[in-house]
Amino acid sequence: MTKLFNDPAEFAEEQFSGFLSLYADRLRGVPGGAVGLRSGEPQVAVVVGGGSGHYPAFCGLVGPGLAAGAVVGNIFTSPSAAQVYSVAKAADQGRGVVLTFGNYAGDNLNFGIAAERLRKEGIDTRIVVVTDDIASAPEEDKRRGIAGDFTVFKVMGAAAAAGLDLDEVERAGRAANAATRTLGVAFSGCTMPGADKPLFTVPEGHLGLGLGIHGEPGIRDEPLPTADELGRLLVSSLLKEAPDQAGQRVGVILNGLGTTKYEELFLLWNTVSRELAEAGLEVVDPEVGELVTSLDMGGCSLTLMWLTEELEAYWTADAYTPAYRKQRAATAALVPAQQQAGGEAEQEQAPQATPAALGLAEVVLAGLRTAQQTLHANEQMLGRIDAVAGDGDHGRGMVKGIDAALAAAEAAAADGAGGAWLLAKAGQAWAASAGGTSGVLWGAALEAAGASLTDGRQDYAETAAVEAVEAFATAMTDLGRATIGDKTLVDALLPFAERLRTAVGGGSPLPEAWQAAARTATEAAAATANLKPRLGRARPLAEKSLGTPDAGATSLGLIVTALGRR
Amino acid sequence: MTKLFNDPAEFAEEQFSGFLSLYADRLRGVPGGAVGLRSGEPQVAVVVGGGSGHYPAFCGLVGPGLAAGAVVGNIFTSPSAAQVYSVAKAADQGRGVVLTFGNYAGDNLNFGIAAERLRKEGIDTRIVVVTDDIASAPEEDKRRGIAGDFTVFKVMGAAAAAGLDLDEVERAGRAANAATRTLGVAFSGCTMPGADKPLFTVPEGHLGLGLGIHGEPGIRDEPLPTADELGRLLVSSLLKEAPDQAGQRVGVILNGLGTTKYEELFLLWNTVSRELAEAGLEVVDPEVGELVTSLDMGGCSLTLMWLTEELEAYWTADAYTPAYRKQRAATAALVPAQQQAGGEAEQEQAPQATPAALGLAEVVLAGLRTAQQTLHANEQMLGRIDAVAGDGDHGRGMVKGIDAALAAAEAAAADGAGGAWLLAKAGQAWAASAGGTSGVLWGAALEAAGASLTDGRQDYAETAAVEAVEAFATAMTDLGRATIGDKTLVDALLPFAERLRTAVGGGSPLPEAWQAAARTATEAAAATANLKPRLGRARPLAEKSLGTPDAGATSLGLIVTALGRR
Repeated sequence: MTKLFNDPAEFAEEQFSGFLSLYADRLRGVPGGAVGLRSGEPQVAVVVGGGSGHYPAFCGLVGPGLAAGAVVGNIFTSPSAAQVYSVAKAADQGRGVVLTFGNYAGDNLNFGIAAERLRKEGIDTRIVVVTDDIASAPEEDKRRGIAGDFTVFKVMGAAAAAGLDLDEVERAGRAANAATRTLGVAFSGCTMPGADKPLFTVPEGHLGLGLGIHGEPGIRDEPLPTADELGRLLVSSLLKEAPDQAGQRVGVILNGLGTTKYEELFLLWNTVSRELAEAGLEVVDPEVGELVTSLDMGGCSLTLMWLTEELEAYWTADAYTPAYRKQRAATAALVPAQQQAGGEAEQEQAPQATPAALGLAEVVLAGLRTAQQTLHANEQMLGRIDAVAGDGDHGRGMVKGIDAALAAAEAAAADGAGGAWLLAKAGQAWAASAGGTSGVLWGAALEAAGASLTDGRQDYAETAAVEAVEAFATAMTDLGRATIGDKTLVDALLPFAERLRTAVGGGSPLPEAWQAAARTATEAAAATANLKPRLGRARPLAEKSLGTPDAGATSLGLIVTALGRR
Repeated sequence: MTKLFNDPAEFAEEQFSGFLSLYADRLRGVPGGAVGLRSGEPQVAVVVGGGSGHYPAFCGLVGPGLAAGAVVGNIFTSPSAAQVYSVAKAADQGRGVVLTFGNYAGDNLNFGIAAERLRKEGIDTRIVVVTDDIASAPEEDKRRGIAGDFTVFKVMGAAAAAGLDLDEVERAGRAANAATRTLGVAFSGCTMPGADKPLFTVPEGHLGLGLGIHGEPGIRDEPLPTADELGRLLVSSLLKEAPDQAGQRVGVILNGLGTTKYEELFLLWNTVSRELAEAGLEVVDPEVGELVTSLDMGGCSLTLMWLTEELEAYWTADAYTPAYRKQRAATAALVPAQQQAGGEAEQEQAPQATPAALGLAEVVLAGLRTAQQTLHANEQMLGRIDAVAGDGDHGRGMVKGIDAALAAAEAAAADGAGGAWLLAKAGQAWAASAGGTSGVLWGAALEAAGASLTDGRQDYAETAAVEAVEAFATAMTDLGRATIGDKTLVDALLPFAERLRTAVGGGSPLPEAWQAAARTATEAAAATANLKPRLGRARPLAEKSLGTPDAGATSLGLIVTALGRR
């Protein structure tokens, strides 16, 4: 929804004034629009135009290698003939003018009247109307102009920059239009500044196939497809409308209409590029982004321009405008990827494991399996505790972490790795899969525990377990920066580690020492119910969580208790 | 709302794969992200990163003059330490690595762990955390990183491209962060792929001041201001937070978050640039557009970087990435605007008017005033007729047209112009103000009528009126291409013109001839009720409008009847 304006009636004028002040180093405003500052030899003036609300079309495309001027109408409204005349007159460099715009009744009228007036004054003026929208009519010359505006403008802008004369620029533009096809879809309408409802709507859960960029009727509404399905539909529909004698190379635009964002377009590009390749087409300099928008409309369109050698030269040529910049030299200088791979992280090799380290691997695997059973059994409960003061995802996160950790450890064990290596791999997998701060901490702590053990020893004394637990705890406190009393798992972890050390130091066998430490951890976890959590700004949550133990401390207590029972 | 995906869980990965295939000529994918293809001498590797959903941040900023690599996490989620490590290792060119990202807990953890690992392997690694969001905390080092990410990345990318060593690149980055302040507002939340409701919401009719790019708490909700008010609020809030020893030159970003579109940002730029100038600040290379987005979130932010000489050099330096391209030479070659104005349409001068032409001017002015009264009196009725088969704006459009036409004619009359000139000016004003096809046609037809008269005659015979009406009708049919029976104003206009010619030709004085012709026009207008309109595809409308006269024909009938009564 359009939210930024002062007087809605002045929207088009005010936004254009801001645009002009922003690009005063390369454009100048004239009554009715903008013309680019010049350099070098006089060229044929390609003057583009139409209503506002479609940026980068139309004023964003004025600059070297593209348009010489843009006529700027009110929102979604043709500029007047006087505006077209004024801009064309200022853009003319003595080599003639091409007026070019999408095929709409108002634009045809106004650009037509202006052309007459310019001709009467001796300025040779041609008109190239863009008719790329295959959904708008069966007859090619009756179709509307949508994102294919850009391919036609780009070809003529490059032809003019190459010094071609008016006849030739016009001919190239007509060739570009004849070679260009677009099909668009809309997910949602756009809202005019100051309006309290959209200009048009698309039924919820549907897309409007072929719906125009001002809400003109399309072909039909369809239930929302997956991105794959939509990509196939767009490509196959366009291929059915391929021009006669179409070649194998195509310029492509996958255009977003405003609210359909870059990541969605990149995702759709996977399917589009694959389908084009499967149809035997070679893609040349594809553009995926926003080139012709409709305020905040949701939707996208796919444009193909079947290239001849000439069209390809103009399609790939340099340009430098507010909204579109291409500089072939910048990428030509780069060394191709296949020649410069390397420097990547090498695939790490597990060190040779001693028999003792292989024995340790069995212990680690068994321990991870026990932890997995415990966490799965308690996932819901941990989530409920976390939901009191957090976002309730602790149970889910721990389950995702342990599942990934166990899978990684099992894969490493199958390769003959020792227990220390298994812990390192388990930690890395936990961190990558569990998400959230607790995932990172559990992962780093497991990795640190593995690093304290190493797989080269001939035997692992009971103190090795104590050291591994302390390495785990140190990683947790170093990274997480929590201390006792912050109502985190550190409140259970540090008493556990300390009790384990004193019990083993006092001569207890590891199983008994562990059980004693586990009881300590469980009690400490329960005691966190009396602590306010460490949540700085979130006072209401702090109060709310009183009487509830910390979810992280609880899960630690459950795990060490389960491990003690083995 | 995010609409394009296959499996929502695979969204981040799939979109990144599409992105990589699109830019395979300049980037290569590595586990965890992308690195730029190299050329030239080895440089310090600036590695940026964070979650997906913020394009152009982060992978859109990899390329010459900016980042050497980008780490790509899941949507709104920190990448893992293993991903950061992998990308940094691949991006390293032997001169060290700077990891740089916005200040979020997960990113701090994961980039921190990766930095440790890189250092252990002998790769000198620094961390520069961006903390530009003044709304997120009073203490500078606790603030979140938002659009100011870009200024910090840009400065370090340019410093690395200039060949600086690791210490210097890190120092420049810290200086950029210390000089950068951002304040953002949100109008609406964003929707994660596959989610059925937004991640967060902003109360209807409000904005969230300082709301974070993932919906983090802001300062407060406020009723939606005008663009002017918002611009003043953003500038004044940032100026209060200016760094110590701030200079007079600032780099500026006015950033859209996804759904707040270019035109809105340009409009807001009017106020922002004015307020900055009034505060004595000089704006250097402002960027107005989308640099750090949040899926389809509505909102924007203003970023100021107070420039030193060094920061300005890096801020204005060339860069060439998928989403950000700057080439100073392209604009430096242009001739400044003040040196190349001219070629514009000259201010047209009214020809010297004869006394007869001045008399005609009185007739024209009186006629336009009569038409104005008639149209104002009938605006609602014309709208109601038009609404049966059209969009109901005919009354409004005609009123806007006649008001502008009369004002233009009165201004021309005050300058001593003749009647023909008044008609021409009235027509141009009508076309420019009324909008729609009928506005263009009325404007062109009035202009044609004026052209048929000229202001050089010594007297105007009654046949001059007939010729003017015929010129009017010819312009209307030439441009509008409607014929009798199409249910347009032509159905009333042509019988009117014909009856006027035969009556005057038969010797009737003009007043009687006009009244007879006006009766004919009114009858013909009424008879259009029996015609199906000329609406091609719109069959239901055609049926619906049966029994209703055409609005355009009706308004013509009303006007000529009123003129006849004078």
